[in-house]
Amino acid sequence: MKRLLIIGIGAGDPDHLTLQAAKAIAGADVFFIIDKGEEKDDLVQLRKHLIEEHGRRPYRIVEGRDPERDRTAAAYTNAVEDWRARRADLYERMIDDSLKDGQTGAFLVWGDPGVYDSTPAILERLPFPFEVIPGISAVSALTARHRTALTSVAKPVHITTGRRLAEEGPTADDMIIMLDARCAFSGLDDFHIYWGAYLGTKDEILIEGPVREVGERIRAVRAEARARKGWVMDTYLLRRLA
Amino acid sequence: MKRLLIIGIGAGDPDHLTLQAAKAIAGADVFFIIDKGEEKDDLVQLRKHLIEEHGRRPYRIVEGRDPERDRTAAAYTNAVEDWRARRADLYERMIDDSLKDGQTGAFLVWGDPGVYDSTPAILERLPFPFEVIPGISAVSALTARHRTALTSVAKPVHITTGRRLAEEGPTADDMIIMLDARCAFSGLDDFHIYWGAYLGTKDEILIEGPVREVGERIRAVRAEARARKGWVMDTYLLRRLA
Repeated sequence: MKRLLIIGIGAGDPDHLTLQAAKAIAGADVFFIIDKGEEKDDLVQLRKHLIEEHGRRPYRIVEGRDPERDRTAAAYTNAVEDWRARRADLYERMIDDSLKDGQTGAFLVWGDPGVYDSTPAILERLPFPFEVIPGISAVSALTARHRTALTSVAKPVHITTGRRLAEEGPTADDMIIMLDARCAFSGLDDFHIYWGAYLGTKDEILIEGPVREVGERIRAVRAEARARKGWVMDTYLLRRLA
Repeated sequence: MKRLLIIGIGAGDPDHLTLQAAKAIAGADVFFIIDKGEEKDDLVQLRKHLIEEHGRRPYRIVEGRDPERDRTAAAYTNAVEDWRARRADLYERMIDDSLKDGQTGAFLVWGDPGVYDSTPAILERLPFPFEVIPGISAVSALTARHRTALTSVAKPVHITTGRRLAEEGPTADDMIIMLDARCAFSGLDDFHIYWGAYLGTKDEILIEGPVREVGERIRAVRAEARARKGWVMDTYLLRRLA
């Protein structure tokens, strides 16, 4: 029997790792790492650092190449579906080639594996049992660093994407926006924003204030950081002004 | 200068603790623990276990008594506000009495301090600097144990309370419901439910399936567990059936 683990490694700080995740890393025989075919080297480096720190030798690291994803597709959900199917094929080949019966293979996932991550849905297509180890999500890291709550008393919070915010506008007084490449907060002058990029890393940037006061600064800082590093990962909480 | 830490300790499993949280516990001089004046002894025990395991002696544990909260109040938000003010007073007295200048005091918080927890909002009222250490939320623990994602591709998720669900009905295809004392999922026959109680503990119970098939069983299991243990902490994900 081959066994798989999806291990949430937290939002960027190596110390976000839980004791459960550290033990899971120590118990894995093979780590599967997908090369995104681009930059984001820092991200691959942190994974390797955690494996070196917590892995128990002998272990193997098997690297695969991410299937191309059609990011121009109008039918976004179909494109994701297609990409997931191809990634499942890739994983299955990697597992067939590298994992022996009785061994445990691990996928290290940024943040929490439940939050806008495809790994559980991909592994579900494969004929192997798997477990998920939760991790500190970017959402938890963001609110902790800003020392604020995700939720207001007895009120809902909506977690959504930048694309949806741009299309639908605000749907709640408290919203977390993820995967926003276009600063969809612009013009939301009724809101306070708690913004964070590269959370938990040495490059972390935090800005908060009313959108009408800090929105332009966030746009500029984000563009500058992205140009300098080649990539940016950010998220933010919008809270309607009282 | 007195310094305070709010440390998220995860959803019930002692191994949910992050390395960051373990180090923070090791660096604290005084732990403030609030006795809820009722049962929930298991919860206080886990806190003490984590302190014993990761604390660096000499440290002190200072216990306070939770101010009464008027749970019958029609104006729920005002009652919470009033309770928070009284709890801030309690914390301030405890800190004045027990924490010396230059020392660090810690509050250990279930799950993630950002998710329906008052501690950051209460400490904000006090004249001491504080930091927040994120933790594994019940949301992350729930989706991990059910090996499912919180979010569907490119779609929002709404996190809300049982009270709101009962009043407003479903507001999204994917919803997390917390603080639900009355099984507000009943009758939502268009939904699949992923339910979990006592997540991460030896008493953990997981049930999932279409609400119309497993709803009654969850009600019964929940009532039985609550009667047996004297308390129940549960949460669930509702996902609209395709």
